[in-house]
Amino acid sequence: MATQVNPPRGMRDFLPADKANRERVLGTIRSVYTQHGFDEIETPVMEESSRLHAGLGGDNEKLAFGVLKRALTVDDLHAASTPLELADLGLRFDLTVPLARFYATHQAELPTVFRAIQIAPVWRAERPQKGRYRQFVQCDIDIIGEKGIIAEIELITATTATLAALGIDGCSIRINDRRLLSSMLTVFGFPASEHASVLITIDKLDKLGTDGVITELRDRAYPAGPIDTLEAFFTRPQTMEFNPFGEKAIRKALPEGIDEAAVLSLVELGAALGDVSSLVFDPFLVRGMGYYTGTIFEVAHPSLGYSLGGGGRYDGMIGRFLGGDVPAVGFSLGFERIVDLVAPDALGGLDATALLYEEDVPAQLLVALKSELIASGVRVRLERKPRNLKPLLAQLAGSGFARVATVRADSTLSTLEFRELA
Amino acid sequence: MATQVNPPRGMRDFLPADKANRERVLGTIRSVYTQHGFDEIETPVMEESSRLHAGLGGDNEKLAFGVLKRALTVDDLHAASTPLELADLGLRFDLTVPLARFYATHQAELPTVFRAIQIAPVWRAERPQKGRYRQFVQCDIDIIGEKGIIAEIELITATTATLAALGIDGCSIRINDRRLLSSMLTVFGFPASEHASVLITIDKLDKLGTDGVITELRDRAYPAGPIDTLEAFFTRPQTMEFNPFGEKAIRKALPEGIDEAAVLSLVELGAALGDVSSLVFDPFLVRGMGYYTGTIFEVAHPSLGYSLGGGGRYDGMIGRFLGGDVPAVGFSLGFERIVDLVAPDALGGLDATALLYEEDVPAQLLVALKSELIASGVRVRLERKPRNLKPLLAQLAGSGFARVATVRADSTLSTLEFRELA
Repeated sequence: MATQVNPPRGMRDFLPADKANRERVLGTIRSVYTQHGFDEIETPVMEESSRLHAGLGGDNEKLAFGVLKRALTVDDLHAASTPLELADLGLRFDLTVPLARFYATHQAELPTVFRAIQIAPVWRAERPQKGRYRQFVQCDIDIIGEKGIIAEIELITATTATLAALGIDGCSIRINDRRLLSSMLTVFGFPASEHASVLITIDKLDKLGTDGVITELRDRAYPAGPIDTLEAFFTRPQTMEFNPFGEKAIRKALPEGIDEAAVLSLVELGAALGDVSSLVFDPFLVRGMGYYTGTIFEVAHPSLGYSLGGGGRYDGMIGRFLGGDVPAVGFSLGFERIVDLVAPDALGGLDATALLYEEDVPAQLLVALKSELIASGVRVRLERKPRNLKPLLAQLAGSGFARVATVRADSTLSTLEFRELA
Repeated sequence: MATQVNPPRGMRDFLPADKANRERVLGTIRSVYTQHGFDEIETPVMEESSRLHAGLGGDNEKLAFGVLKRALTVDDLHAASTPLELADLGLRFDLTVPLARFYATHQAELPTVFRAIQIAPVWRAERPQKGRYRQFVQCDIDIIGEKGIIAEIELITATTATLAALGIDGCSIRINDRRLLSSMLTVFGFPASEHASVLITIDKLDKLGTDGVITELRDRAYPAGPIDTLEAFFTRPQTMEFNPFGEKAIRKALPEGIDEAAVLSLVELGAALGDVSSLVFDPFLVRGMGYYTGTIFEVAHPSLGYSLGGGGRYDGMIGRFLGGDVPAVGFSLGFERIVDLVAPDALGGLDATALLYEEDVPAQLLVALKSELIASGVRVRLERKPRNLKPLLAQLAGSGFARVATVRADSTLSTLEFRELA
């Protein structure tokens, strides 16, 4: 007997029904994003190791799979002072570092405002656990070169349309702005040098609750005054979510003296997206990635304890390999979570028929019948007729085949009797 | 200024027009293969290093990119006696080793005769050169579990239909059988122990010509008798290609006393594929891969000096990780070559309009107009109207946009004036 044979740890095979469903969902995402004016690009799965470890990937850099240099000698191994010296390439851990590299390579060939789609796998050497894989697909859209809030509006519109096309209802989009968070902490009295660290705690609000956040901040021995002010603000009535999304709600949700430009850009965004009741202003939405510089957003679904995707403005990053600032906004859909929410339809609507053939049927006849049925738009599978039909019929029905017919040596297309499968 | 920024050596980025064309070609291949009863599967890009180096990949095993173990210490590096010890995973160099592993993992969940589609990138650390890349896409179909020639017939039918759907005309399919080659060498008097090595030389017939092959064989100091017999056979009239494909032509192309079972299976194949004038019997077609055991075939295009794809029967290999023999036939299309033959049509037929907006147009109006146009089935891109329109219009036309309209603060859908782009 063979020993256990599995795909590598934390990575998955996809059998036909799952693969068909994944391709169908990807096709819908690709098509809606394209209609909304975005263009798909592709980069190699590997990037230079030095780019993957240039500080743009945050904690994910540590999770990158390294690719061994070719033609290494044993002496090279023994002279190395760190494993990273032996890797010149690595597998990408996100699609943002490759996008920054792509933009630096091809800027001259791209439109001034470039709307990119990237649908592709990424790899992270995380400890595998339920719903977390070492190879998974990300679906990113990014708008590069547009400073105005119109970029955020186009991203959110395209995302909302995609979720609708996939039949995923009831999502809300939580919105905030990094500038508001920072301005709010200043108003509360936190010194600017502490903002990043305080935000890491506030980012745990969903898990810890307001009391937990206040306790963690006090344990960290920040000055008591600003924490008291934050606690008082938390315990105001209606502090956490504000709906409908508009100037009044936004101002009511924030303390006095806040960054006015950030407020006005959110107000413009709310006006443009009109009466979208699924927009929610969340003044304590942080999103972990340190590189965001403005608007941030996240898609929430009522049935799930985690977000379906998120993004924001990250003006400092795309220009890093170019040596200059380039405005950019991005949104990443969590494909692996989305595909679980979409009802499977393995065959994508193709009418499917199986031809069961007796042992003495000439191959020539089988080919002719199969070709004629395919020409009429039917998906066809040939199956040698087994002695015991039942398991085969069950398997065919399970794979989405709707009909079977038995082919004999004297069959013609008009004498075939098609029988419906349950 | 930034320094040179490129994708890794031998790997490519795809800009929007190329990416759209690639996806369109992949979509056609996927759809024809599916109609012909094949099911798409997917495996992770990495496999265990030991499986990639189990002897199933021939020379390609040496070209595998190795992936560094995680959490290696400096002591591990210094204790290693070969680089391979530091890699537990590797990037696949073909889709056949992963298929063998996939089949071993999932056999119980798959139909008795399993028809697989795999469309995915593979990686080889080859010296980059024109038309040869370190990351490239393979399109494989395989039929596992079917001993009869009907499997070969289904593969060839599906491949021919795919090439037709892509508009690639004039291809011929060269066919031979490994058993005939071996039987022929026996008839000529080569001892069985020399067959593999003689076939390596005969495989160079396209490059060396018959004289070159004979010279190389004589240089290698094989016994003169068999080489003289082969030379006489080469110089018979009409030895190289035989058309129309049928029993008479096949028998005429071979010496007396050849493997009868192999002749009959080719005759059955020819009868089933009927009057397919693109079938060519080539008694000296070898195909490098040592693992073929029966029929072998190759797609040739008159405009190209290389094949567009090929395959054959390899009954010994799929069962390797299962510890038993499993019949299998496979066909691999050279996607990178095919995509170069297909005329680009970047937008896949979507009607595309650009809305050029003045600085004072509210985002709300832009969103409303864009949404209405998208709802009518149009692809829409927003563009801030530049002072100098010309470069933008040229770029839009080049990206497949057919129409532009200028949006002013008081525009409505009915007042927009659409202008055709050349």
